[in-house]
Amino acid sequence: MTMTTTTPNVYIEDLAQNGTAYLGQDVTLHGWLYNKRSSGKLHFLQLRDGTGTIQCVLFKGDVPPEMFEAGNRVTQESSVRVRGTVKEDKRSTLGFEIGVTDFEILHESVDYPITPKEHGVAFLMDHRHLWLRSSRQHAITRIRAEIIRAIRTFFDERGFTLVDAPIFTPNACEGTTNLFETDYFDDKAYLTQSGQLYMEAAAAAFGKAYCFGPTFRAEKSKTRRHLTEFWMVEPEVAFLDLAGDMDLAEDFVAFIVRAVLENRRAELTLLERDVSKLEAVQKPFPRITYDEATKILKQEGHAFEYGDDFGAEDETIISNHFDRPVLIHRYPSAIKAFYMKPDPENPELSLNVDMIAPEGYGEIIGGGQREDDLNVLLKKIKEHELPETAFGWYLDLRRYGSFPHSGFGLGVERTVAWICGIHHVRETIPFPRLMERLTP
Amino acid sequence: MTMTTTTPNVYIEDLAQNGTAYLGQDVTLHGWLYNKRSSGKLHFLQLRDGTGTIQCVLFKGDVPPEMFEAGNRVTQESSVRVRGTVKEDKRSTLGFEIGVTDFEILHESVDYPITPKEHGVAFLMDHRHLWLRSSRQHAITRIRAEIIRAIRTFFDERGFTLVDAPIFTPNACEGTTNLFETDYFDDKAYLTQSGQLYMEAAAAAFGKAYCFGPTFRAEKSKTRRHLTEFWMVEPEVAFLDLAGDMDLAEDFVAFIVRAVLENRRAELTLLERDVSKLEAVQKPFPRITYDEATKILKQEGHAFEYGDDFGAEDETIISNHFDRPVLIHRYPSAIKAFYMKPDPENPELSLNVDMIAPEGYGEIIGGGQREDDLNVLLKKIKEHELPETAFGWYLDLRRYGSFPHSGFGLGVERTVAWICGIHHVRETIPFPRLMERLTP
Repeated sequence: MTMTTTTPNVYIEDLAQNGTAYLGQDVTLHGWLYNKRSSGKLHFLQLRDGTGTIQCVLFKGDVPPEMFEAGNRVTQESSVRVRGTVKEDKRSTLGFEIGVTDFEILHESVDYPITPKEHGVAFLMDHRHLWLRSSRQHAITRIRAEIIRAIRTFFDERGFTLVDAPIFTPNACEGTTNLFETDYFDDKAYLTQSGQLYMEAAAAAFGKAYCFGPTFRAEKSKTRRHLTEFWMVEPEVAFLDLAGDMDLAEDFVAFIVRAVLENRRAELTLLERDVSKLEAVQKPFPRITYDEATKILKQEGHAFEYGDDFGAEDETIISNHFDRPVLIHRYPSAIKAFYMKPDPENPELSLNVDMIAPEGYGEIIGGGQREDDLNVLLKKIKEHELPETAFGWYLDLRRYGSFPHSGFGLGVERTVAWICGIHHVRETIPFPRLMERLTP
Repeated sequence: MTMTTTTPNVYIEDLAQNGTAYLGQDVTLHGWLYNKRSSGKLHFLQLRDGTGTIQCVLFKGDVPPEMFEAGNRVTQESSVRVRGTVKEDKRSTLGFEIGVTDFEILHESVDYPITPKEHGVAFLMDHRHLWLRSSRQHAITRIRAEIIRAIRTFFDERGFTLVDAPIFTPNACEGTTNLFETDYFDDKAYLTQSGQLYMEAAAAAFGKAYCFGPTFRAEKSKTRRHLTEFWMVEPEVAFLDLAGDMDLAEDFVAFIVRAVLENRRAELTLLERDVSKLEAVQKPFPRITYDEATKILKQEGHAFEYGDDFGAEDETIISNHFDRPVLIHRYPSAIKAFYMKPDPENPELSLNVDMIAPEGYGEIIGGGQREDDLNVLLKKIKEHELPETAFGWYLDLRRYGSFPHSGFGLGVERTVAWICGIHHVRETIPFPRLMERLTP
């Protein structure tokens, strides 16, 4: 920061982390008025600077009359500069307040659209660029950032190589229904739905690899769990079988939850999240087969056709049987992708695994062991009526030193929704994209 | 790992990091044959497992005849399992080798396309999924991953909040020429070229924010510096002026280079990078104005029209005057985007800055201070003949508590090209997308 002032510029987070060092000192803060309360000779200005909120006390006796009047006039979200002395304030969670000696309105905010009154969701979504300034959205965004940091740390510390998958893909391998398409010079390109096939190539190159980026689905779904644009992390490991894949997924999710509990507890509290539910997320996670999961549904008297995939309601019923994420493995091969390896003990079943979050937050992980036999894979591609030519390079991975391998994908937004305890995924990403929402 | 073996599975990186702990022990390794050399009773198998390469010595006297024969037969990139004793090997950089007691070919690779002979670039690019297995591509990918890690660490440690910008954007704000377009249900969406406008909203919310993701340009450029899909990191800071923005960019790039020098020196050596050139990248970086830069061009007898933007050749000539990145600031406003703030001392100039990498690697950073006055911005939008309605939410940032702010964008691929010392950006990303390259 090089704004010209005679006292040091500080962020509120500096005071939160090490306020004692500033005690009795004069500091300058820049930010916006979050809230205020006045009583005769005093203005209590709640200043937010994006890194925190601090009470600034403007006492009539300490400043020139026009400055006290500015404190009277200042509106919500006006940008301001405050200079003053750092004082102890035992009543605030921060522990400090500012005794103001100099106060300046930089830019007055007139009729700020988001007021402390209740607003409808459509209105707030239309004003997402301003809504992000609220304490609730701050908490969610910070937890999201922490989850993303934890994801990368987990894999980086375990020797995984980051291998970014492409966004533009050349073939509509599994049909164009849910794909976004764009002209690509004289060709067509499709926006990626998953980096997995590329990560299989990366696993052969690096042993342990992951990609992490946005993925896209043009699904005509208006549920609380669907975005058209969402972030996914996809690890893939050579010489790893399904059991090892489940170990990895379990370690991974436990690590993420622990990181949020350690570093973002204040934000969880602000969201009124029941942290005891998150503290229960300890290894080992229950592991049940698809067959066992269908028995739970039957036992609950819930109508379910054996052989179908689980829907949102089914997942909720199953998850309610456990106090932590549950791993469901070995689904019928018929409902799983062509690249899933069949269980050698029962080829009708697939060596796949889904992880269902607790408390009805649905599937957060899907993965499994991949088919590594060239001929079996070719047969599967025919059975699924897929264009073999499109898979030329993918089949190369089975031609040149084929290897057992497994991996999975974790959806960031559903994970954020679960950990934050929020109902709809639209609040889990700064600028959500839904079927009917492309702005701001 | 849960592959069934009686000896512990290790990665070569485990031996690289702590081989002494394994000395004399039996271990199991899984990987691919990278190279081999035989001499009568000995096969020297170079095994790669993605985390490193180790010599495995198969001695005829130690194993059954059919196992020694397998060592004879094994081809490049066949997948194998090796069991054996960890022994000291002072001649290798790793320091250890394996005395093989058990050797198994898991899958034979027949006619692996990439051989030690020279291949053309088109051929290698067509086989990118296999080319990634080579030591050179390993080094580049690892340095890329290190740069990305350093980027995130730098901002996370400095209290920046990660705020992912959307990929789908609703308006073709600055014309559709270089934009990829897609049908979005009953609407049109465009793939983002930059998250900056969103980061300005994020700076108002979080004080210090950054986004980091893929961006897209449908430019009909076939130069060595252009990809259609590339990753960009964009920090934006409230109450920061141009001088502070230059400080931040300088700290940031010095941090990235230091991280690579500290953590990826072996990879730089493999790429035959002159590390003394990177070691010179110390603060302070030279800061020159656009005017001063044009004088350098003139002094070199290089034809250049004052008022134009710098082209690749111009950038190279300027960069050759310095031994580290150079910051060029205050370009003519006429060639800069509508949101750039004019210099109050000379409104013909803009408070922008570009950073040019040394050694002719071109622009790696573009940024500056943003216009924060609503009326000036409205006037600029008219002058640039842009649709005002498309900027409704962006103008809100100047309506409600407007604030001075600055930021920049750094292109990852050009930074990787520079640090690795490679000529063409196509090798800087695992699966490059160029005008004529959409596969594999």
